[in-house]
Amino acid sequence: MKFIKTPVKGMCDMLPADMRLREHILQMIKTSYAAYGFMQIETPVMEHIENLTSKQGGDNEKLIFKVMKRGADLTRAIEAGKQEFADNGLRYDLTVPLARYYANNKEKLPTPFKALQIGNVWRADNPQKGRFRQFTQCDIDILGDDTNLAEIELVAATSDMLSQIFSEVGITDFTIHINDRQILRAAALQAGFDEEAIGSVLISLDKYDKIGLDGIRKELIENGYAEEVVTRYLSIYESLQGDVTCGDFCKDIAEEYLDRKVVDGVDDIISCAKAMINEHVKITFDPTLVRGMGYYTGTIFEISIDGYNFSIAGGGRYDKMIGKFCGQDVSACGFSIGFERIITILKDKLETVTPVSEKNLAILIGKNVSLDRKLEIFKRAKALRAEGTTVTIQPMRKNMKQQIEKLEAEGFKEFEKVYND
Amino acid sequence: MKFIKTPVKGMCDMLPADMRLREHILQMIKTSYAAYGFMQIETPVMEHIENLTSKQGGDNEKLIFKVMKRGADLTRAIEAGKQEFADNGLRYDLTVPLARYYANNKEKLPTPFKALQIGNVWRADNPQKGRFRQFTQCDIDILGDDTNLAEIELVAATSDMLSQIFSEVGITDFTIHINDRQILRAAALQAGFDEEAIGSVLISLDKYDKIGLDGIRKELIENGYAEEVVTRYLSIYESLQGDVTCGDFCKDIAEEYLDRKVVDGVDDIISCAKAMINEHVKITFDPTLVRGMGYYTGTIFEISIDGYNFSIAGGGRYDKMIGKFCGQDVSACGFSIGFERIITILKDKLETVTPVSEKNLAILIGKNVSLDRKLEIFKRAKALRAEGTTVTIQPMRKNMKQQIEKLEAEGFKEFEKVYND
Repeated sequence: MKFIKTPVKGMCDMLPADMRLREHILQMIKTSYAAYGFMQIETPVMEHIENLTSKQGGDNEKLIFKVMKRGADLTRAIEAGKQEFADNGLRYDLTVPLARYYANNKEKLPTPFKALQIGNVWRADNPQKGRFRQFTQCDIDILGDDTNLAEIELVAATSDMLSQIFSEVGITDFTIHINDRQILRAAALQAGFDEEAIGSVLISLDKYDKIGLDGIRKELIENGYAEEVVTRYLSIYESLQGDVTCGDFCKDIAEEYLDRKVVDGVDDIISCAKAMINEHVKITFDPTLVRGMGYYTGTIFEISIDGYNFSIAGGGRYDKMIGKFCGQDVSACGFSIGFERIITILKDKLETVTPVSEKNLAILIGKNVSLDRKLEIFKRAKALRAEGTTVTIQPMRKNMKQQIEKLEAEGFKEFEKVYND
Repeated sequence: MKFIKTPVKGMCDMLPADMRLREHILQMIKTSYAAYGFMQIETPVMEHIENLTSKQGGDNEKLIFKVMKRGADLTRAIEAGKQEFADNGLRYDLTVPLARYYANNKEKLPTPFKALQIGNVWRADNPQKGRFRQFTQCDIDILGDDTNLAEIELVAATSDMLSQIFSEVGITDFTIHINDRQILRAAALQAGFDEEAIGSVLISLDKYDKIGLDGIRKELIENGYAEEVVTRYLSIYESLQGDVTCGDFCKDIAEEYLDRKVVDGVDDIISCAKAMINEHVKITFDPTLVRGMGYYTGTIFEISIDGYNFSIAGGGRYDKMIGKFCGQDVSACGFSIGFERIITILKDKLETVTPVSEKNLAILIGKNVSLDRKLEIFKRAKALRAEGTTVTIQPMRKNMKQQIEKLEAEGFKEFEKVYND
């Protein structure tokens, strides 16, 4: 029988130092979100294949790890010859499971319900640097709140948590970008695009950071849109000079395309969030923010750090998704942090590995030390551990130098050598 | 498209109160084991199907959730018609992944290596009360230590951790049972059984708690063993009157069957562990302890609590397993706690759900409260959260009575109602 030493392709073994950093950060996340009243929940890693392929997951549905039917179900599937061999799949995000969870448990939960989910997700993506097939996601969501208190709490909680984490490595400044899908839609309609064109127009606008307005113009014209409409559309965005309020940006968009409540809502979220976020954090209306997922219906947000060309958190309002599981619409708004990206930034900035603990002691015992001396050591270790010192008791190895070096690499500082009698 | 509200068969949605209890206990486990120098590691939930079906997992190998091949690999498998549709599977325990992990990473790890693993495992078992298809396991293992310091540290750490957890619900007394596979083997040989019969004889002895010596006698004779041998075998166990030391139990077993070092080792483990465990905890040599898994090679142990007919922790030495992955033998000894069983006992004993936090406040805001009043509330909430109070800010619902009741059920005690201007 052949044994394979490496992990499954695209997945990682976590070393002790990795785990200490991850656990430390996860604990900060849990404590910080708990202070805002978010309640941690958990769903099974496996979901019914029907739910995972219900068109809520966009392109992620192409990346599902499918779990095979078993026993008689599998035999029947093979005999039928239709290749429907899977009844379950591993979740590719935490949003589809949340929708199912809320539909299944809402009678037992407060309304609104503030959920915190931390868990692994799986995508059969092409593995590349920093992108894995198993990775941790960390989402907060507020279900059943149709007011913008939901957005304010989500933005404040996430910003507060990130300020705490990044302050450990001296990063204090980051930017929260806010926009609204209804504003994106209205600006396109105002310029003269058809309702049906909006999806494709937003795919081009989403490339603003990479290709700029000139690149977007070129792409839109290549896609067959009238030059006149494209010019009118981009003129709305050209007028942007540095910071612009949502009210200013939308002032020329006709009421028939955009309810003024949406505009006031975005400006309110920004001023209320400012009352809670750290003074170093910038919060800004960003009319070019699009975000990929099709399920957003209103506000969208993203957080970026200077010097990194990726966002570290993103989210928005998605009022139409939970209803597909519940049978009745449930307002929903969520914010997801890029946990693996945050860990990458921290590892980048940290100069040493996270040590086992502040106070520690490694006792190395020779193989022929008497029972009485060992008993004395065990009693002392018991007392030290009870008062918070990490104590490891191990046989002294022939190569003690290497033994001690490896322990030092994990953060052990104190060593006691008990030689044979 | 049909959506399914319930979780996958045999798996659970965790409610907030469940999660608070689980997280609280997991934190105690992590802190307690860290004090003994155990280092947390993590492996992917998926393993190569070759590793999972390598005969290390016993009956669990029949319960694997298999993950399907993808893309061209799947097409080839279907065309070949051999039904080898899976390349991976979900792990059914944490021991096989640990063996692979150690083989893959041992150059980067201290020797001996003290590992803590906490993670879910999956078994396609028939779901029944208290038995799930996804459940959490929590294992500590010491790899690369062939002395009985490994057993002593494992037993002391697990006992210490359980004392801390159970003291929260007033349970202080439990019993640690210790035996050695080599003693089980020697007793059978001494009585006159063949080497080949030992596996089957131990399956009968393992039922001691359920059927007693009379039941074992009946079963062994039904299985075709000579009455004379069976009588001699059971006479070794009949002589047990209450507590017996390992030395006493083994005194009539011939040296050719049993190395005296094994006997002294068990008695040493017991006296050394006594120096570290809580005074309420009993530790005893238990000659009828067998434990099911085939991979144990030496010491075995189990922990039981009075009044519950299941063990809450079990483990032992398995010196031959890691070598199958590493290519050279690595001594190994582990202790696994029944995390789900412990949670069941705690839920049974706890009178109230674990509350959100000690200090908390729910602020319910009317829909037409002015921006200025809201800003004042947000600033106050920021200060309260910074000093450790859980504050949730929510829209006041029409049915405020129910809203408050649901929050009270989660442990909220303070409420502030901000009515419309």
